[in-house]
Amino acid sequence: MTKSNPQGLSLGELAEAFDLTLHGDPDTRVNGLATLSAAGPDQLSFLANPAYLRQLAETRAGAVILAAGDRERCSRPCLVSRNPYADWARIAGRLHPRPEDPPGRHPSAAIDPSARIAADASIGAQVSIGAGCEIGPGAVIGPGCVIAAGAIIGAGSRLVARVFIGNDCRLGERVLVHPGVVIGADGFGLAFDQGRWLKVPQIGAVQIGNDCEIGANTTIDRGAIEDTVLEEDVRLDNQVQIAHNVHVGAHTAIAGCVGIAGSTRIGRYCMIAGASGIAGHLNICDKVIITAMSTVLESIDQPGEYGSGIPARPQRRWQRILVRLGQLDDWARRLRLLERPSAKDKEQA
Amino acid sequence: MTKSNPQGLSLGELAEAFDLTLHGDPDTRVNGLATLSAAGPDQLSFLANPAYLRQLAETRAGAVILAAGDRERCSRPCLVSRNPYADWARIAGRLHPRPEDPPGRHPSAAIDPSARIAADASIGAQVSIGAGCEIGPGAVIGPGCVIAAGAIIGAGSRLVARVFIGNDCRLGERVLVHPGVVIGADGFGLAFDQGRWLKVPQIGAVQIGNDCEIGANTTIDRGAIEDTVLEEDVRLDNQVQIAHNVHVGAHTAIAGCVGIAGSTRIGRYCMIAGASGIAGHLNICDKVIITAMSTVLESIDQPGEYGSGIPARPQRRWQRILVRLGQLDDWARRLRLLERPSAKDKEQA
Amino acid sequence: MTKSNPQGLSLGELAEAFDLTLHGDPDTRVNGLATLSAAGPDQLSFLANPAYLRQLAETRAGAVILAAGDRERCSRPCLVSRNPYADWARIAGRLHPRPEDPPGRHPSAAIDPSARIAADASIGAQVSIGAGCEIGPGAVIGPGCVIAAGAIIGAGSRLVARVFIGNDCRLGERVLVHPGVVIGADGFGLAFDQGRWLKVPQIGAVQIGNDCEIGANTTIDRGAIEDTVLEEDVRLDNQVQIAHNVHVGAHTAIAGCVGIAGSTRIGRYCMIAGASGIAGHLNICDKVIITAMSTVLESIDQPGEYGSGIPARPQRRWQRILVRLGQLDDWARRLRLLERPSAKDKEQA
Repeated sequence: MTKSNPQGLSLGELAEAFDLTLHGDPDTRVNGLATLSAAGPDQLSFLANPAYLRQLAETRAGAVILAAGDRERCSRPCLVSRNPYADWARIAGRLHPRPEDPPGRHPSAAIDPSARIAADASIGAQVSIGAGCEIGPGAVIGPGCVIAAGAIIGAGSRLVARVFIGNDCRLGERVLVHPGVVIGADGFGLAFDQGRWLKVPQIGAVQIGNDCEIGANTTIDRGAIEDTVLEEDVRLDNQVQIAHNVHVGAHTAIAGCVGIAGSTRIGRYCMIAGASGIAGHLNICDKVIITAMSTVLESIDQPGEYGSGIPARPQRRWQRILVRLGQLDDWARRLRLLERPSAKDKEQA
Repeated sequence: MTKSNPQGLSLGELAEAFDLTLHGDPDTRVNGLATLSAAGPDQLSFLANPAYLRQLAETRAGAVILAAGDRERCSRPCLVSRNPYADWARIAGRLHPRPEDPPGRHPSAAIDPSARIAADASIGAQVSIGAGCEIGPGAVIGPGCVIAAGAIIGAGSRLVARVFIGNDCRLGERVLVHPGVVIGADGFGLAFDQGRWLKVPQIGAVQIGNDCEIGANTTIDRGAIEDTVLEEDVRLDNQVQIAHNVHVGAHTAIAGCVGIAGSTRIGRYCMIAGASGIAGHLNICDKVIITAMSTVLESIDQPGEYGSGIPARPQRRWQRILVRLGQLDDWARRLRLLERPSAKDKEQA
Repeated sequence: MTKSNPQGLSLGELAEAFDLTLHGDPDTRVNGLATLSAAGPDQLSFLANPAYLRQLAETRAGAVILAAGDRERCSRPCLVSRNPYADWARIAGRLHPRPEDPPGRHPSAAIDPSARIAADASIGAQVSIGAGCEIGPGAVIGPGCVIAAGAIIGAGSRLVARVFIGNDCRLGERVLVHPGVVIGADGFGLAFDQGRWLKVPQIGAVQIGNDCEIGANTTIDRGAIEDTVLEEDVRLDNQVQIAHNVHVGAHTAIAGCVGIAGSTRIGRYCMIAGASGIAGHLNICDKVIITAMSTVLESIDQPGEYGSGIPARPQRRWQRILVRLGQLDDWARRLRLLERPSAKDKEQA
């Protein structure tokens, strides 16, 4: 775990700063965060999931952030919140602030003279920035990033390390991009001609809206003609694959290992669980939930939950089901036969 | 979208250069490319997919590349092509040429003195090239690439950025490798001995044929003993995983997120759709199509289309199907019982 | 294939060094390794898989490592082993030793002055090492790696190239990390509040035990509060995704493209086949085997084999099965109807 905050904060300060109702001594100080089961008296914890209610009774935490309805079950000081998990997130940012990235350019960075870089941006070691790029105020370009010609990185965005941004791609403000991400590689565009593949130049780019977060080793291809687009506040986990000309609506969250094929539109406020795949040229409306390891092959025009994942079973039981799957066609015939008036008589005839 | 070509080209020049039949004024100039719906009078568009026929009637494009059969439905100037998508690809490369990479070595590149690098090759910033490597004429090693000792990169190949090539791996000519690709990491070779895993050294390498394209963050492992091989004109999309000693035949295209396990042979002219998995030690013949999110567990010796992907449904409907799957064994018994002569009499007895 | 060992070793030396029983001339020398079918008289081969028995009779290998039971089928010199594959692995390491990485720091490496680096560690080109890092004796940090502040790399560990290690993450001894790996990026922690996502700071780190191996482009997220943990001798293949707070037990092996969601515990000596997905907050006991492309949605408390992968079939046959799946609900009704005493009479009434 990362180190705790040496100074700490008092519960009174926290209650005031985050508009929480304190039950306990306002001068009690906490200097770190921990789970209910691990927290000591100088640490803050939280309860957001009823599965952990049991641990609430026994926690030794200095204080607990929780909902009003759970307060009576807690013998420790409490910070009552309308949304304990969100307030936990806010307080965690205060108690464990990310170290400041020093403004300026690491001497090892290779920066094209035509790039325009805000004075307070931070350019890390081993970075490469191409011609005509723009890096906004407060942006952080971490070690080993490659920004190709003409790309624009908005104010306050942070590319943690080893990120690739393709030419002419544009990231909005406060975008957080984790290591290994590739934004703006060519989409998979091929024409078949005379027995061989011919590459179709990918002349679109990628636009990423404000407040998006892109997980480690995720790939977002540039558009074939028009741009691939993520609207604002889209959240992608690790190893997601977004093909050319996909459009993802605002506030949609996509879990790890999901793949979305070309030209598909995903609505706003969708949630796509891990390792699902969505075929190309589909239209998924707002507020759709896709469950884990599902395969979406048709457009969806009604909000709600969709899926096709199959839960694992003991392998011998699963093998029997697989055998049965192969028999279904035959069963259909047998069922029809049984249902026919005097079917049995005819069969025995 | 990337910027348009300032000079542009006349329709007459295009017709002649690409052997197309022009219907319209040969002096009309186009300076960029766009979709049928977005194109303006100085842009070229194309029709290759009948789904966009509707847009043909209304397009404002300066000209449209299309098949002879679609010409009468188009009121704009036309370039008639035998293969509109392929000619679109060729013209796109002419109208939007990739900026030239400057020949020579960026001063930040770390190049072993024993590496042999063609005079007109382009070595980007923050590159590392190991002992004994060979970089062919016109090859481009983009920023942040790592080429380990003894690797060979053929003429005209381009490693866009942040690519890893393992020791002694060999890429042919005109190979295009996108960012984040890892070619020639160790295969997953383990021997279990005395309660622990023992690493099996991976002493093979990787051979990539001419004209292959490798998508972002794809991984191709080196062989355990002999080499992992991609024949010529193999096209891999992003986040594909090719295990040790896989052999992929010429002209095969593999879409995003596909995984192919060790020692499997894929034939020529195969097409494997997204997120499918192919088990190890199989033999897939030429001209096999695997549909999306399928699991190939047995060899295939007949060309054609194969699959096992399940389309997502509303989750409640899918849950009911899952319950039914668990009942199939019981149903088999009940069906047999119903079919038995006078089954009902016996049961009721 | 990589070059053979110029000096070679005699069979007598091999028998003695690895405690094998030699049948043949101890002075025969071998200078490389090859498969049974490809080996020449100066190369060593092995038989560990009965599928290759056929090739044993015809091999031209200088010698073959095999089990006692297979010796009589081999006309070439033999090294009889209790575990031929493990001894093959050991001998391969001797005959094809990895070139030594030169101790010291490449001049292009950017190393924070507060980092403590063992004198015999090897720091490659274009590396970035942050404040307070510790790099142990004999460790190798290959080209293009980024080690964030406070990370610890144990003795003898090797980061091949372009690896990212997040701040305060700790790798044990002899850990092997392949290119493109991201250890310690933020987990996917989001709180929904007032119509937007709020990032939940990820204040845990990652701990990797001794003798682990991490495949190319694999991602292991840092913990939300406590750490993500891999115990010793865990083996991950390429493109595996390990979410925050996952705990993987010792000696577990996980094949390519597997995803494990947050807070799941995987036991010791488990084997998870390729492209499987394991949901979050589960508990998988020791010695569980998950077959390829399976979806684990519930905890498993009994050792054994589990799965839900569906083998691909010719697409038309598969399409018929999909149609049948949609009919199962109706079939259940029809089966019940047929089973009812005098069902047929009533239906016909």
